[in-house]
Amino acid sequence: MSLTVVGSIAFDAIQTPFGERERALGGSAVHFSLAASYFTEVRPVGPVGDDFGDAEYEALHRHGVITDDIERVEGGQTFFWSGKYEWDLNTAHTLDTQLNVFGEFEPKLSDASRDCDLLFLANIQPDLQRDVRGQCGGVQIAALDSMNFWIESARESLIQTIGEVDMVLMNDAELRMLTEEPNLVKASAAVRAMGPRVVIAKQGEYGAALFTEDGFFALPAYPLETVRDPTGAGDSFAGGLMGYLDSHGGASDDATLRRAMTYGSTLASFWVEEFGCERAEQLTRDDIDERYEQFKRITAIDSVPTT
Amino acid sequence: MSLTVVGSIAFDAIQTPFGERERALGGSAVHFSLAASYFTEVRPVGPVGDDFGDAEYEALHRHGVITDDIERVEGGQTFFWSGKYEWDLNTAHTLDTQLNVFGEFEPKLSDASRDCDLLFLANIQPDLQRDVRGQCGGVQIAALDSMNFWIESARESLIQTIGEVDMVLMNDAELRMLTEEPNLVKASAAVRAMGPRVVIAKQGEYGAALFTEDGFFALPAYPLETVRDPTGAGDSFAGGLMGYLDSHGGASDDATLRRAMTYGSTLASFWVEEFGCERAEQLTRDDIDERYEQFKRITAIDSVPTT
Repeated sequence: MSLTVVGSIAFDAIQTPFGERERALGGSAVHFSLAASYFTEVRPVGPVGDDFGDAEYEALHRHGVITDDIERVEGGQTFFWSGKYEWDLNTAHTLDTQLNVFGEFEPKLSDASRDCDLLFLANIQPDLQRDVRGQCGGVQIAALDSMNFWIESARESLIQTIGEVDMVLMNDAELRMLTEEPNLVKASAAVRAMGPRVVIAKQGEYGAALFTEDGFFALPAYPLETVRDPTGAGDSFAGGLMGYLDSHGGASDDATLRRAMTYGSTLASFWVEEFGCERAEQLTRDDIDERYEQFKRITAIDSVPTT
Repeated sequence: MSLTVVGSIAFDAIQTPFGERERALGGSAVHFSLAASYFTEVRPVGPVGDDFGDAEYEALHRHGVITDDIERVEGGQTFFWSGKYEWDLNTAHTLDTQLNVFGEFEPKLSDASRDCDLLFLANIQPDLQRDVRGQCGGVQIAALDSMNFWIESARESLIQTIGEVDMVLMNDAELRMLTEEPNLVKASAAVRAMGPRVVIAKQGEYGAALFTEDGFFALPAYPLETVRDPTGAGDSFAGGLMGYLDSHGGASDDATLRRAMTYGSTLASFWVEEFGCERAEQLTRDDIDERYEQFKRITAIDSVPTT
């Protein structure tokens, strides 16, 4: 099994009440890949510039991420985002965005990337997402993320792309915005009516909810005393989730999806404890499995024995 | 076992996108009592005016609510609130508040009310809450709710009252506001440091979280396609929770609290399906138990068998 993700590869300048970084490795494809790397072989697809150097490749290789489809554009600069979070960490204010090589990105997938079993279309322009979806005809599960910017500026294209995937992972506010339906149960049903079998609503500090033909599942977020930087939370959630599914043969029954969401939330909970993707440097699969078990205990209405 | 609640008894004029009522029976003590009535004997304490008539008493008596401590003020008018909810039902805009008899309220508890096993101090002025707490020296569990208005206008009194109860049930935003701590885990720890053993954070459409010495529990809200009126959601949650605890001998270990929160959330989920407390007219204990079981299934990471 293998997993391909198309998305941004970036340097981020981040300010939060708990510190700052001037040039942190980031971008949706990076956060996703590092989180998924704990479960499976993952290939990020995206462009970088000359400034993307050995240290950055090494950070990915240490986690077994296959970087063959990272396209290095001669003379270009890597996508750059600068943002600042307020005291409650809920809102990111963008200070600067430099698309750089990402502005001219035309995804060209290698045979190995196209032959993936699972495909994740991270939050990029929906025409590009659909292009990549078309290149990967044989995947078992294609999933996508999107955001308010594309809902406003490329709504019809986004809806068309949603019609070609199996699973949608979006923030609950954006599911409501896309469907113009304030009730989340109805909004998710409306997105499922566009084509996907599975809708997963990300709810930030409140967790995530799953909507399928068979029913509903809701998972709170893991309670954290220390949250330093929420950047990458959604992408690490998606990476953990898709990585888990890929490592389980691409199953997508409700029981497997529930466990996958819990692994996704576990990854996200670690991710926000440090800036950017720095937490991955000190994170082991054992840590992840331990917190996963803890997750089961803190959500069980009838308490789960701790032994 | 028996349960006393002190709080408002009101007529509400409510507008939501799904309809309106000009004069719905309401108030925190009413919503709480009707929800708790499915589990135990409950005595609301609060003032009403001449306009509170047979129909209102009958609505309470049908549920076995003991109305001996509802103080009828001759020549007075019952507390009146008028509010309007926006399309997403998240924010209530108060259009009018007439305190009427509630403005001069001095809680005088009967012996039977004072001898309760569990006591709930609904959201009223914290001096009054503390007065009632003092009258009920022998209770097993005293719990309180409060709101931003008292945090701003009577902060020291509220903190003193919190120091005299065992359990605090408040909205998560208000726990943050009270403690000036944006992180909910830390905010709840800060409230527990004021005295209470148990803090329960209400999170509206996202559910609720429990903080005790022994740990953490998080419960999502029950997914609803039909939400007509959120008025009384928090009070019916508290009523179901405290009613369940009272019917279980006033136990407050974590396992019992988890089940009590789930019953509270179940009651709240029914409550918002109709205006005011109208849902109680058609609600049976069997309905409640059935949704409680459903709650276990939709929150179980490892699926619970449906048989």
